[in-house]
Amino acid sequence: MLFSLTRSRRLVPHWRLVLQCRNIKSENTARAAVLDSTISAFRSICGEDNVSVGEAVREQHGKDESVHRCCPPDVVVFPRCVEEVSGLAKICHKHHLPIIPFGTGTGLEGGVGAVKGGVSFSLRSMDQILDLHEEDFDVTVEPGVTRKALNAYLRDTGLWFPVDPGADASLCGMAATSASGTNAVRYGTMRENVLNLEVVLADGTIIHTAGKGRRPRKTSAGYNLTNLFVGSEGTLGIITKTTLRLFGIPEAMVSAVCSFPSIQAAVDSTVQILQSGVPIARIEFLDDVMIDACNRFSRLSYPVTPTLFLEFHGSERSVEEQVNTTGDIIQSNGGADFQWAQDTETRNRLWKARHDAWYAAQALRPGCKAYATDVCVPLSQLPQIIVETKKDLIENKLTGPIAGHVGDGNFHCLMVVDPNNPEEQHHVHLFSERLARRALAMDGTCTGEHGVGLGKRALLCEEMGPMAIQLMHCLKDTLDPNNLMNPGKVLLPRQL
Amino acid sequence: MLFSLTRSRRLVPHWRLVLQCRNIKSENTARAAVLDSTISAFRSICGEDNVSVGEAVREQHGKDESVHRCCPPDVVVFPRCVEEVSGLAKICHKHHLPIIPFGTGTGLEGGVGAVKGGVSFSLRSMDQILDLHEEDFDVTVEPGVTRKALNAYLRDTGLWFPVDPGADASLCGMAATSASGTNAVRYGTMRENVLNLEVVLADGTIIHTAGKGRRPRKTSAGYNLTNLFVGSEGTLGIITKTTLRLFGIPEAMVSAVCSFPSIQAAVDSTVQILQSGVPIARIEFLDDVMIDACNRFSRLSYPVTPTLFLEFHGSERSVEEQVNTTGDIIQSNGGADFQWAQDTETRNRLWKARHDAWYAAQALRPGCKAYATDVCVPLSQLPQIIVETKKDLIENKLTGPIAGHVGDGNFHCLMVVDPNNPEEQHHVHLFSERLARRALAMDGTCTGEHGVGLGKRALLCEEMGPMAIQLMHCLKDTLDPNNLMNPGKVLLPRQL
Repeated sequence: MLFSLTRSRRLVPHWRLVLQCRNIKSENTARAAVLDSTISAFRSICGEDNVSVGEAVREQHGKDESVHRCCPPDVVVFPRCVEEVSGLAKICHKHHLPIIPFGTGTGLEGGVGAVKGGVSFSLRSMDQILDLHEEDFDVTVEPGVTRKALNAYLRDTGLWFPVDPGADASLCGMAATSASGTNAVRYGTMRENVLNLEVVLADGTIIHTAGKGRRPRKTSAGYNLTNLFVGSEGTLGIITKTTLRLFGIPEAMVSAVCSFPSIQAAVDSTVQILQSGVPIARIEFLDDVMIDACNRFSRLSYPVTPTLFLEFHGSERSVEEQVNTTGDIIQSNGGADFQWAQDTETRNRLWKARHDAWYAAQALRPGCKAYATDVCVPLSQLPQIIVETKKDLIENKLTGPIAGHVGDGNFHCLMVVDPNNPEEQHHVHLFSERLARRALAMDGTCTGEHGVGLGKRALLCEEMGPMAIQLMHCLKDTLDPNNLMNPGKVLLPRQL
Repeated sequence: MLFSLTRSRRLVPHWRLVLQCRNIKSENTARAAVLDSTISAFRSICGEDNVSVGEAVREQHGKDESVHRCCPPDVVVFPRCVEEVSGLAKICHKHHLPIIPFGTGTGLEGGVGAVKGGVSFSLRSMDQILDLHEEDFDVTVEPGVTRKALNAYLRDTGLWFPVDPGADASLCGMAATSASGTNAVRYGTMRENVLNLEVVLADGTIIHTAGKGRRPRKTSAGYNLTNLFVGSEGTLGIITKTTLRLFGIPEAMVSAVCSFPSIQAAVDSTVQILQSGVPIARIEFLDDVMIDACNRFSRLSYPVTPTLFLEFHGSERSVEEQVNTTGDIIQSNGGADFQWAQDTETRNRLWKARHDAWYAAQALRPGCKAYATDVCVPLSQLPQIIVETKKDLIENKLTGPIAGHVGDGNFHCLMVVDPNNPEEQHHVHLFSERLARRALAMDGTCTGEHGVGLGKRALLCEEMGPMAIQLMHCLKDTLDPNNLMNPGKVLLPRQL
């Protein structure tokens, strides 16, 4: 393949060349020496208080919400503007220090761990909402702005940003991982809702993926750099600004909960609702184990059977009609106990129960941690994969309630794992690999929305095939020839 | 900037090295000699009848529907399957012959011209519709399948593919140019509707951008290769299969036409319709000159004032409500003569008039050719840019009726140019540059949906800035180090 040539361009830093025959401990010592000499340079850029080598701060920046072990960076910097990010990146580039962007740490695939040491760029101090254009339905945010903060800011404008992965993640972090969540079936994922990005590359260069300040709602101007960085998980550059599409807040929102006699009946209803053209905003599946956990955790009393949580957005009349059409479809599939929630309080309680599924799952086994699988398959494959997966869970005596964004074919097993039981962890790992391969065999993906991070690099190779993986390596080499940007994530090291 | 290193990787073919001090004519002669020896190899791959060096065939493949001059390729090949495309590409790669993919030739920016000679890959013989999955709302098509052919095929399934650029373009060609058109405001552009691509790279390697056969509705698996190729205009690879999202055909469709006292009133109505949450499917602006031309060409009698053509999709009740809300908004902005079309025949006549705008414009000056500008700006900037542009047209005595997809902020001046008047052509060129710069000054783009091709390469540099352009060059070098894929398009040669 022609572009394998690029590999030769990866430069090896001096201190690594010196050490290449020694062990990793020595390498760490050498890096520590380099770091010592750079700390003062970092401080001269972003101020004494915005550079930390304290153990607690480093620990906090070495892990996300996943089960991946904590890999603390050597130092954490807190830049306050893009110029500081660029200046800090230039120092890292000069000294060949890894750069790991850090948003809110709410990722689920170990994306922020400093597996090769280096410098964590915490972007929380860059928290300005810039350039809101109400008439144009767009806004630009810095990387410290979370989705809830943006929506609170927008409250009086009649606009909102609907992409909702559950956690109150930073919007630039959501762009970096190509996040989506419950509203994607109607409003799309980050891929469809990012108009422009400001990115600092590995050498400190600042680029704007759609040209500086540009925000047309569509464009055919050159290569789509925006979507090259969306989902790149910090391995190609640091996102320092995101321009987002906004939407009008619907006049009416109605939520509903409905129980089904079988998984097939719930999924058949989903397909028919989509086929009928109902512009459903959310359609979430919970299996019997998940709804039972939610009942216990959130003090609810839904029937313990496969369940759909639904939400309809639109004008009063349109919502009424959506609800009627959906009600007919659900009834014809044997759905029962169709429960409504129109007032904000009841709706919020309902969706809080759904968003708390993560904690509800963990509460099934006190002292345990949750690990979420994240496959996505074509809709028609959902019943089969869920049934097979539940059988697998039972056969292997694993706790893994299922919740899913079934309108997109995306679902999660929330595996509840004893962090002190390596054997169990190994079993869960094998289970999640079997699940991912089941999805791949059904034309699906090993990750619908959490990203690859550390844990799915081998699965990504199976999913994409060697040629597409080689192309991804070449893109990485082109943008980051020294492998400084969040090294060790997304792509496995190449076989030399 | 670190990735400028990649430039050194561009290899110069032997016959170019030999000739590098001679003139272009000699270069062409040398290429012709290389071609002579490769024709038999081409024929052994795709058959005697599927390789043509006939002048008429070459001429036909050297131009699209734009005013760019015809640049015939040296040879046209008609592969019948991806293996033949790959085999032919390998020969081109070996002999450093340019490769120009050819779909239907309906492009508008000179994308198919063989400006460096070489081999045109006409993909019309690969015209199979593959793997329709009705329940999953997806289908895979070969590059000879046009959007009308697909929709005819889908007619009895209750599904359709809504992206509609006007021309009956091939769907893979639409992916290559990131096309959109009238329905994009509701259903998105090709960027949002391509799930996977099969691509043959410059050296003949076949890749699948989302993994072979995969079609999840969303994914976070690695770098977004799909959207790297969507909009790359044949400069990174040849698209040989596209997997597309499909949509349910709405229960009801209603079209409407409405006249406005001013451009501002028409655009204000558009913004308010979008703000009100009406899920409008089409909202097309025609200025007074355009509606006058359409009246003449299609024997209609709409008032000669700024006009919106609208279309509503949904259930009967939902459409009725959309129409009522829209009617109120339009009335409050002084809109009049709100005319309805619900039956298919009247609707088709109405949209035929809109799609015939191109020919209606040309008919304003018999013997002339149309050239469409294609800027896109944030919605709020539309009135100002249209008013300034009309003033510019009048001051410079140019004929350029305006039609636009105003829901996206995208509009075209259909410039009617005398092909035998170089001075006029020059004036039109200067006008279109002024228009593009006006859009750039308003945070917009020089191309909303036609692509860069030949004519907008310099404007792309202004739009993106030097750093983003350099990154685009590096991506091109990585995927196509010998600059064989549709050379001379999208990016201007780099300043050495």
